[in-house]
Amino acid sequence: MKKEDVPEIVVSRLPLYVQTLNHLLKEGKSVVSSAELGERLKTTSSQIRRDLSYFGGFGKQGTGYDIITLMESLRKILNLNQTWQVALVGVGHVGQALINYDGFNRKGFEIIMAFDESPKVIGKKFGNLVVKSINELEEELKIKPVDIGAISVPAENAQEVCDRLINNGVRAILNYAPVSLKVPEGIQLATVDPVLKLQKMTYYLK
Amino acid sequence: MKKEDVPEIVVSRLPLYVQTLNHLLKEGKSVVSSAELGERLKTTSSQIRRDLSYFGGFGKQGTGYDIITLMESLRKILNLNQTWQVALVGVGHVGQALINYDGFNRKGFEIIMAFDESPKVIGKKFGNLVVKSINELEEELKIKPVDIGAISVPAENAQEVCDRLINNGVRAILNYAPVSLKVPEGIQLATVDPVLKLQKMTYYLK
Repeated sequence: MKKEDVPEIVVSRLPLYVQTLNHLLKEGKSVVSSAELGERLKTTSSQIRRDLSYFGGFGKQGTGYDIITLMESLRKILNLNQTWQVALVGVGHVGQALINYDGFNRKGFEIIMAFDESPKVIGKKFGNLVVKSINELEEELKIKPVDIGAISVPAENAQEVCDRLINNGVRAILNYAPVSLKVPEGIQLATVDPVLKLQKMTYYLK
Repeated sequence: MKKEDVPEIVVSRLPLYVQTLNHLLKEGKSVVSSAELGERLKTTSSQIRRDLSYFGGFGKQGTGYDIITLMESLRKILNLNQTWQVALVGVGHVGQALINYDGFNRKGFEIIMAFDESPKVIGKKFGNLVVKSINELEEELKIKPVDIGAISVPAENAQEVCDRLINNGVRAILNYAPVSLKVPEGIQLATVDPVLKLQKMTYYLK
C-alpha cells in the first residue's frame, strides 16, 4: 500500500499506539491483545485491528501482539528511528518552553536553531542554543537544511514566517500561533492551540 | 436537542468556527457563506451546515451567515461569555509558559492558582501568581473552587495530580504530561502533546 493510501486519521493514531505500547513495556508486559490496547486507548479492538491492517499483519489471532515487535514496526513506519532537526521561530515564553522541553529530545526531535526579531533575545542563549536574528533565517537554512519548523510568533506574523520556512525547504510545520495557517499541498501542518481544547470542554461545563 | 446528543466531534469543531469568524470580522467582513467558511476550515460547506444544524438555523439559504450573530451564538453555546478560572499544577518550563501566555486571558481563561512540589519554585512569583505547595491543593480548592485544572507535571506524577484535582471539584482537565490519563465518566479531558503531532508528520517526510 502506498503511503498516501492510508487515511490520515489512521496515521494520526499511530503515535498514540507507540506511546501506549511504550507504557505497557515499562509496566513489564511483553504481549498485548487488541482488546487491551483498545481499552487503554478508549477505542475498540476492531478499530485497532483495522488500523494496523493497513501496514500488514502484526499478530496472530488469539495470541495478541508482541509489544516490542509492534512498537518497533510502528516506529519504523513513522520514521522515528532517526533524529529530526527542527528550526524554531519565536523565542518568547512558548518558544523558550519548547527549547527547554526535554520531551522533544527524548523522542528524537532536536531544535538546532532558533530565530526571533526582538533585540531582547537575539544573541541570548537558551539551553545550548544562541538565538539568531530572523533576518538570518534564509542563510541558516541554506547552510543547515531542516525538515521541520516550529512557529511560536504572534498570530499576525505566523503566516509570513510559515511561508519563509517552506520557501527554504521546511516540509512540516508545528504551529503554536493561534491562527489557521495556509500551506501548499504536500506540506504537513499541525497546530497546537490549548485554547481550542479548553473552549470545547467548556461546552460541557454548564 | 440535549447537550449530550450533539456528537463530540461536532462540538470540537465549534471553537475553530469561532476563531475563523473572528478572523473574518477583523478582515472587515460582516457576512460569510458556508462555502467560504468551509474553504477557510478546509472542509465542505455541507459539513458546516450539518454541524450548525444541531443548534438550530443560523442563516437563510443563499444569503450567508451574519458573522457577529453566528459568532455570538456559538460563543454562547460554548459558554465563552464568562471567565473560566483554572488551577495549574506544575510550574516548570511548560507551566511558566502557560502562566505567561496572554492568549488564555484574552480568551477568557484565567489561571488563578499554581502549585508545585519543588522548593525551587514554591513561594516564587510568576506574573501575578505566587506558587503554592502542592500540599495546599485540597485546602485552596476548598476556598476557591475551580472547574478547570491544567497539569504540567512529569508523566509519572500526572495521574495522581489528576485524581486529586477531580476529587476536589475540578471537572475539566487540560493535560500537558505525555501520558494518557484516566478520568471518570462525565469529566472532560484534553491532552496537549506536540510530540504526537510531530510523530504523525514524520510519517510523510520520507
